[in-house]
Amino acid sequence: MNRVDLPEIIVIGAGGVGVISALSLFLRGKSQVSLVVRSDYEHVKEFGYEIDSCDYGQLNNWRPHGFFKSVKDASESGKFFEYVVVTTKNIPDGPEGSSVADVIRCIVESNGKLCPERQTNILLVQNGIDIEKDLYAKFDCGDGKVVVLSGTQLIGSTKIGKGVIRQIGQDHILVGPFEKQNKAAVDAAKRFIDLYRNEDRNLVVFDENVRYTRWRKLIYNSVIATTTALVGMDVSRCLQFGVGGISTEEEIFKPGMREIIAIAASEGIELDEECITFFCDISRKREYKPSMCVDCENGQLMELEVILGNPLKIARQNGVSTPVLSLIYNMLFMVQNKLKEQKGYIKFELDKD
Amino acid sequence: MNRVDLPEIIVIGAGGVGVISALSLFLRGKSQVSLVVRSDYEHVKEFGYEIDSCDYGQLNNWRPHGFFKSVKDASESGKFFEYVVVTTKNIPDGPEGSSVADVIRCIVESNGKLCPERQTNILLVQNGIDIEKDLYAKFDCGDGKVVVLSGTQLIGSTKIGKGVIRQIGQDHILVGPFEKQNKAAVDAAKRFIDLYRNEDRNLVVFDENVRYTRWRKLIYNSVIATTTALVGMDVSRCLQFGVGGISTEEEIFKPGMREIIAIAASEGIELDEECITFFCDISRKREYKPSMCVDCENGQLMELEVILGNPLKIARQNGVSTPVLSLIYNMLFMVQNKLKEQKGYIKFELDKD
Repeated sequence: MNRVDLPEIIVIGAGGVGVISALSLFLRGKSQVSLVVRSDYEHVKEFGYEIDSCDYGQLNNWRPHGFFKSVKDASESGKFFEYVVVTTKNIPDGPEGSSVADVIRCIVESNGKLCPERQTNILLVQNGIDIEKDLYAKFDCGDGKVVVLSGTQLIGSTKIGKGVIRQIGQDHILVGPFEKQNKAAVDAAKRFIDLYRNEDRNLVVFDENVRYTRWRKLIYNSVIATTTALVGMDVSRCLQFGVGGISTEEEIFKPGMREIIAIAASEGIELDEECITFFCDISRKREYKPSMCVDCENGQLMELEVILGNPLKIARQNGVSTPVLSLIYNMLFMVQNKLKEQKGYIKFELDKD
Repeated sequence: MNRVDLPEIIVIGAGGVGVISALSLFLRGKSQVSLVVRSDYEHVKEFGYEIDSCDYGQLNNWRPHGFFKSVKDASESGKFFEYVVVTTKNIPDGPEGSSVADVIRCIVESNGKLCPERQTNILLVQNGIDIEKDLYAKFDCGDGKVVVLSGTQLIGSTKIGKGVIRQIGQDHILVGPFEKQNKAAVDAAKRFIDLYRNEDRNLVVFDENVRYTRWRKLIYNSVIATTTALVGMDVSRCLQFGVGGISTEEEIFKPGMREIIAIAASEGIELDEECITFFCDISRKREYKPSMCVDCENGQLMELEVILGNPLKIARQNGVSTPVLSLIYNMLFMVQNKLKEQKGYIKFELDKD
């Protein structure tokens, strides 16, 4: 059923978000979708995915048009991938060769060789602020041949086993250009939306103001996700287990969120103060552990830099005071190094006289 | 070899500090020493202690004059205990009946019945500030029949197995009255020092200013011990694993210590700023985990209130600003509740609409 006239899309990262992204594209039927699967490759090649989706129902033995075991394999497939959808975690301080730019470089290069005149669109479906900067620095985005797009996902979807995905929250994604004035990027974002949208199933929105969207999501992630990672418990426990049942909200969450709002304001992004109540309440009534907390508990590196490090860099540049966020960052930076040591990425040596 | 003319002393808490305390008293030979041993009781009754001590060398099969399985057993022994030496952790927010006052009440009462005219001296060999207050509130200390003394230990000693103690740092204890003007307490402290001091072995000092001593030790415990507990690693890693290898010291330890110094100053205790460098350096070059960190890792409640909660109460009363310490406290308060939930002391229920 491969149709050569349809655009090729590659989805990198086969977690809860990546697989549902591939599924949405597949079901829309307007593109050829390949998925890069690392650890589950042999399993899903043979059995496909078992997906329990609030958007698409129960699927068994589901396969996208293609599987690749690595990005490199994809780059050697002879295919030109019009969209490179990145759904991996973004950990710029991870081990060498693990940055997004390093991971996708071979695809960008093979695309360039296959069709030097065509445009490669990189869609970063990832959290955090300033995540596009490293790609701008490492790829030649000035000539319009490489375009970087933002995807902000509000989905609830998790890989719960080998080849098993459980999606409990609608695939709700905002897609837009990191640079509003870049017409090629605007067009690429709109075209992607058309390739991805399944009416009455997922919710796909053109993001007019990517920076605003990302700062808004950071209100939650920079403060609540980080706190849960540091203390090792879900959000509702964090709230209830504070002094008098209120200190977490009043002395950590709200002041921290106000700092994010102040940093965003320092670069002209106005976030509504009402977000604060909204985000404090959003996971109060369920035992929800943000992925940063889960990563930390599982000994995996956290997305600390894009979620908290980068906002704090901007705060420093713009002279915004961030006592709460800085302390959380300094604490989690130690924890991140502990995780790196456990994984063998760094080595600890005791200071000697 | 029991001599009825010697004063009876009971040591409560058979950890690294308690056993060496009993040993120091025993070797001095001027008192009859009993030790309350809970979990290792049967073992040490039969085999005694195996002690590797930097002060006293290698001892095998060592026993104090008496063992009790519980404080209640001791209170029913018919003995009047002139000194009640408490070396347990001080966790006022622990389960019901576990406060120091609750634990020693039966001894204070049996002492009172046995010899109503004699003075019972309670020596708290424990960390923290304001730990005497609860005893003042619960025992009648006004009539001079119950005296509360402070013991600040700088020993390095750990129970490393059933009945096995390893002491690597000298038994260096400061003993003094919580109230300088209480002559009975001053005398009781000096008399204890005489019962405890072994020339050229341990270092036993009369503490002229208990409050100063305790605040000084808090510079370390309130800031460094708490941080290690929160991030789950030893002090040297905390220092090295900070941003640029310096943020832990410059943005957590030093500002936090300055807050402790400011709180102490608000009640007239002047601590030298040089303490800051001293305490930052003291465990830089060894992989030392403060007991608060070890407790947290082992799922045991932390001495959070006496080490950090009480200083912050004083800060609030005196209007001292404590941004760093308050945030650490609020974080650890959540962790303490997580530990309490794990131990079944509290129950978590999700907020419902």
